[in-house]
Amino acid sequence: MHTLRLGLIGSGFMGRTHALAAHSVGLVFPQYGAPTCEILADTDAAQAADQAAALGFRRSTGDWRELVADAQVDIVDICTPNHLHYPMAKAALEHGKHVYCEKPLALSVDESRELAALAKDRGCVTLVGFNYAKNPIITMAGNLIAQGALGRIHHVRGTHIEDYLADPKRPGGWRTRQALAGLGALGDLCHILSLTQRLVGEPVAVCADFQTVYRERPDGPVENEDQMHALLRFDGGAIGTIECSRVAWGRKNGLTLEISGSKGSLCFDQERQNELYFYRGGEGDPQGFKRILLGPDQPDYAAFCPAPGHGLGFNDLKVIEMRDLLEAINGSGQSWPDFGAAARIDAVTAAMAASFDSGGWVSVNTTNAGCSGTSNQG
Amino acid sequence: MHTLRLGLIGSGFMGRTHALAAHSVGLVFPQYGAPTCEILADTDAAQAADQAAALGFRRSTGDWRELVADAQVDIVDICTPNHLHYPMAKAALEHGKHVYCEKPLALSVDESRELAALAKDRGCVTLVGFNYAKNPIITMAGNLIAQGALGRIHHVRGTHIEDYLADPKRPGGWRTRQALAGLGALGDLCHILSLTQRLVGEPVAVCADFQTVYRERPDGPVENEDQMHALLRFDGGAIGTIECSRVAWGRKNGLTLEISGSKGSLCFDQERQNELYFYRGGEGDPQGFKRILLGPDQPDYAAFCPAPGHGLGFNDLKVIEMRDLLEAINGSGQSWPDFGAAARIDAVTAAMAASFDSGGWVSVNTTNAGCSGTSNQG
Amino acid sequence: MHTLRLGLIGSGFMGRTHALAAHSVGLVFPQYGAPTCEILADTDAAQAADQAAALGFRRSTGDWRELVADAQVDIVDICTPNHLHYPMAKAALEHGKHVYCEKPLALSVDESRELAALAKDRGCVTLVGFNYAKNPIITMAGNLIAQGALGRIHHVRGTHIEDYLADPKRPGGWRTRQALAGLGALGDLCHILSLTQRLVGEPVAVCADFQTVYRERPDGPVENEDQMHALLRFDGGAIGTIECSRVAWGRKNGLTLEISGSKGSLCFDQERQNELYFYRGGEGDPQGFKRILLGPDQPDYAAFCPAPGHGLGFNDLKVIEMRDLLEAINGSGQSWPDFGAAARIDAVTAAMAASFDSGGWVSVNTTNAGCSGTSNQG
Amino acid sequence: MHTLRLGLIGSGFMGRTHALAAHSVGLVFPQYGAPTCEILADTDAAQAADQAAALGFRRSTGDWRELVADAQVDIVDICTPNHLHYPMAKAALEHGKHVYCEKPLALSVDESRELAALAKDRGCVTLVGFNYAKNPIITMAGNLIAQGALGRIHHVRGTHIEDYLADPKRPGGWRTRQALAGLGALGDLCHILSLTQRLVGEPVAVCADFQTVYRERPDGPVENEDQMHALLRFDGGAIGTIECSRVAWGRKNGLTLEISGSKGSLCFDQERQNELYFYRGGEGDPQGFKRILLGPDQPDYAAFCPAPGHGLGFNDLKVIEMRDLLEAINGSGQSWPDFGAAARIDAVTAAMAASFDSGGWVSVNTTNAGCSGTSNQG
Repeated sequence: MHTLRLGLIGSGFMGRTHALAAHSVGLVFPQYGAPTCEILADTDAAQAADQAAALGFRRSTGDWRELVADAQVDIVDICTPNHLHYPMAKAALEHGKHVYCEKPLALSVDESRELAALAKDRGCVTLVGFNYAKNPIITMAGNLIAQGALGRIHHVRGTHIEDYLADPKRPGGWRTRQALAGLGALGDLCHILSLTQRLVGEPVAVCADFQTVYRERPDGPVENEDQMHALLRFDGGAIGTIECSRVAWGRKNGLTLEISGSKGSLCFDQERQNELYFYRGGEGDPQGFKRILLGPDQPDYAAFCPAPGHGLGFNDLKVIEMRDLLEAINGSGQSWPDFGAAARIDAVTAAMAASFDSGGWVSVNTTNAGCSGTSNQG
Repeated sequence: MHTLRLGLIGSGFMGRTHALAAHSVGLVFPQYGAPTCEILADTDAAQAADQAAALGFRRSTGDWRELVADAQVDIVDICTPNHLHYPMAKAALEHGKHVYCEKPLALSVDESRELAALAKDRGCVTLVGFNYAKNPIITMAGNLIAQGALGRIHHVRGTHIEDYLADPKRPGGWRTRQALAGLGALGDLCHILSLTQRLVGEPVAVCADFQTVYRERPDGPVENEDQMHALLRFDGGAIGTIECSRVAWGRKNGLTLEISGSKGSLCFDQERQNELYFYRGGEGDPQGFKRILLGPDQPDYAAFCPAPGHGLGFNDLKVIEMRDLLEAINGSGQSWPDFGAAARIDAVTAAMAASFDSGGWVSVNTTNAGCSGTSNQG
Repeated sequence: MHTLRLGLIGSGFMGRTHALAAHSVGLVFPQYGAPTCEILADTDAAQAADQAAALGFRRSTGDWRELVADAQVDIVDICTPNHLHYPMAKAALEHGKHVYCEKPLALSVDESRELAALAKDRGCVTLVGFNYAKNPIITMAGNLIAQGALGRIHHVRGTHIEDYLADPKRPGGWRTRQALAGLGALGDLCHILSLTQRLVGEPVAVCADFQTVYRERPDGPVENEDQMHALLRFDGGAIGTIECSRVAWGRKNGLTLEISGSKGSLCFDQERQNELYFYRGGEGDPQGFKRILLGPDQPDYAAFCPAPGHGLGFNDLKVIEMRDLLEAINGSGQSWPDFGAAARIDAVTAAMAASFDSGGWVSVNTTNAGCSGTSNQG
Repeated sequence: MHTLRLGLIGSGFMGRTHALAAHSVGLVFPQYGAPTCEILADTDAAQAADQAAALGFRRSTGDWRELVADAQVDIVDICTPNHLHYPMAKAALEHGKHVYCEKPLALSVDESRELAALAKDRGCVTLVGFNYAKNPIITMAGNLIAQGALGRIHHVRGTHIEDYLADPKRPGGWRTRQALAGLGALGDLCHILSLTQRLVGEPVAVCADFQTVYRERPDGPVENEDQMHALLRFDGGAIGTIECSRVAWGRKNGLTLEISGSKGSLCFDQERQNELYFYRGGEGDPQGFKRILLGPDQPDYAAFCPAPGHGLGFNDLKVIEMRDLLEAINGSGQSWPDFGAAARIDAVTAAMAASFDSGGWVSVNTTNAGCSGTSNQG
């Protein structure tokens, strides 16, 4: 096991979060050693140099193509606007690098599948940044499901709703431009699909409605949806709804999930990310939803803190995510959600968009979905 | 204004609740006088006599046809299983009685419309028992919407989920028989559609999925859906989802609503029926959802209690509902939801069933929907 | 068992609530028959006549002394300002009436004890209106404690805090005058002591602090405390705090309780009166506070509604309270909290006041506390 | 500004948390540069070497006296059991080091004051690890108070209750031994006093009750209190209660606070550390407690994440705390809570213990409390 060297592209919100995680992961999870923060690429050489200094990287470059080709880089970490994920990931894989990429993986499912196939072909480890699925309390939920605590799952309701564009006077930026962002609310907030992939399974058919509530913003026309929702049918027989919105006043990180099965139910709300609500049906004690606070009985929490109820934060989830990447590279070779799993999520979002266009139910095309890690399906 | 005389058919859960309301309404809301509990009909003469004694009715009968024809009856109050609503309401209207009927109004939208037309023709006041819409905190929500506190509504998510049939070993009874109940979870829990009708408007198109999770129960096959959910498009441009379930472990009266508009959001949960959550978007004070506790600034609460936060219960909602009926008979002649409004709700549920059958979007047929009271549309 | 005849004195907030309960109790709890609303007394004959008509009483009087002497009255029900409780209850007992009195029983513990002794001497049933202790979910809490679910109780924290005088510009009325109200926040909100009496036991020593936050109001000087809190030691070894306030902005009916024992904990909040939070310590399932919603497994809930989670309201608690009174008169002869139990509560509040005056711990004087019903001590 | 070099003593729960913070603080708050993790001391040389490797320290030693004397150390960071704080801090100050020490500062208020005086004398910056007071939402609460949003504070209720010793079969370890820990629940959970010091002011008199619920544990007798509570009077006129417990089943980090003033109220619960509840009294909009989610309008949150509602965790609070230390050393020379402020907290806990011993109210001795940073008093 040699020290892995990270090349980071982009130093905005996500880039900085990745950098913080890279500096902490070796301390929190020492099993795989601390990665080296080798080189940082940004839009120009000056900014890259500044950011490399600020974020603790050894070297910097204004040219990401240089980074992906750098022999001193083992992992290419892509934290750029959505439309750049595909060319950067492709180039990195072609250089045989492991790739860690923010979501969504690409702007089209074809691109995602191409990347998944390429990663498989080159034997590269890949991981896409669906960080909320790394919450130890989601792991606990997955374990409860795997142990049968919910029985057979028959319904799931998920949301990822926020209000960052609820004010119509707010400029949309690149997120409202189709060429740069692809989908709108769904593309940005497709985290909910990573939770259902982990906990429930794969959607096989969807029927969706999309709406652009504000067609004009101060910086121009809005080219993708402000809100959407969909009906889903899952491979295991469960049905469900999901909803994504960037115009839902009051919701700051409204990633919520309620799963019902033949023996019980689970609820989760990312705004209270250290809590899980669990109801076990049946006789005996008085019944009610139990509020479970995250504690050190969950190993990925214990790595941060030995005392229960002290609380993890958003940035901690990225540390766990990076640990998963290092573990896959150093060990199993399998991460989740890798490019194959992310391509399956992209196939779902593509099917939803197609459903809105066609005005009816659409099957999710899972053909040729590329290599994929094992998902913890219920 | 003469004293109104009530004839009650049925003395189960709902019949008893109506009887309690009839005895209280004159004290709580003295404006329209106390109705007389004149006669009670039940399945046979003996049971009717027992129930009349227990529930404080002057007379009893084992034959509901006698009751609807009784000259001493002004209001026929129907609290029987669903399949009897139509023939009883029809007979009562034909005798020129005002009719107060539990939901759903009928087993088919055609029947509902026929009843609505008949009521209009005969000049009878009608009211259907969508009691949750009578909660003063829903009235407050309606007022906030009418005052523009939410701006233009663009999304609503509603649920009415319970767990009374979550245990597959539990017998289904008449509720799982199509001939007796009509629809399953949707028919029983269509209250959510009365809330959206009051607060958001009328759905114009729907796309639904239905599922019978348990096809067999100890008392025979299950003939209608255990759970369903749907996408909706409303006349005012808003979109939304609704979900009904009788197999959602842990939810006892999970009638919930989240409404988002251009200026703010509202949330409601019937399990905490004295609370409303309101978020006002914009600048100024630190922002957050405000938990508003029902208090005497709402007149329909003040009628019960002059102190805030003391809490109304389920039975109190029926008292308000009965007040609405008396008010309409004594005054405006208009109640909500009358048979016309209930027929519009039935048109929505029928469209949902049709959508599931056809596998796609279905327009809600609002043709010939009969007379209707004014709904407080946002 | 003959029909019991009620004479009600006072028709304000509480008088009206009692009248509503008297009209409902026979329907909800038919075991003891419906009491007759015989006569209502108010400050003058005209108002009494109006209120008797409004509240469904047969007769009326402007002179309460006439009512307590009336041969057609079995139960005297006292809903007047605090300082009138003692003379009215005394007169009623001297006429051999059963007495139902709002809290606090009297302005001094000596008066309370005198009344308790008199009631015992005359063999009258008495009941004091600590309605929150009648909540079926408090009964459930008591049963859990009796079954040992909490083990040995070692701590209790109780509050009853409201904000009805939080605004210093609001007039204080009779509640801020010592001669009319006695104690201030503690006298008005001593309900918390009825909950601890029922669930935990009797305090044996207290140490309290009182504060009049606003010494002047628009209608004159304030003569009793706006807020108080105290340390308590209970007979069973538990310790606890209680807090009462009428100046706690935002709290409308902040009657809360948290009880911890060797095996578990319970939490209750009257603002969410249909919920109980229960934590069972130990191994096994993931642990957490369980939110238990009131349902028909509790008989006093089932009497109102057969479906769980539908919710009781404040007025329903008074119906249960009146049922307890009728049951004691018709059956056991024992009610709780009778005048003896209420005198013990008054002994606690008196000890708290003495503690503030003396600046230290004070033993609760339980000498001669009169007859008392059994309390459900943990 | 030169790079500050840290010497850490102890590598248990707190030592590891400090190490993580030391590695992150320069990235999150770049203003003061990243400190160097210079040397780590532990109970013996081997363990120290292992931990230094694990936690990213350059050097190690088995002798803390060597560390405090090390010329390459600017800051001595003490994360050992309580009884070692005093000798280590004293030695460090005598070597002119800045000192960062976990709470409680010492086992007696005399020791704390001696340390505070020594720090003042030597001109050293000191900081005690009351990390919860560093939560940006507590800063927001302090700002709201400073801006007058609560008006004049009249009441505070605080708890810090946990259940780590609720199971009587659990060994007590050093925390239950007076010579090693000093006070029990109060000593361990005195965080609540740092919150009141920051937000409300200094207690001037206290009256407390202590209880050792379980006098024997598997590893021997318990020598300090399992639970305690107290009445307090604050310098500004407010009164309040605090409660600490290590035997409160179900509470994992029950550090809660409710503050009421003449214009509004605030509530906080560390188990939901990213939320603040705020009630503004008065007219206008419907009133209610507003749930404010931490967001980037608070600079100390923005340093971690630019998006609202994403949540900080426990470890993040230590990063902010360390930033405060670096800022004081590099800039103002003033930190809070420094040894002077911590000695004032220790004076309060000492007064509480004295109150329990004497059985009555005790004035807090603030004589000679040493130098102190400014607290954000309301």
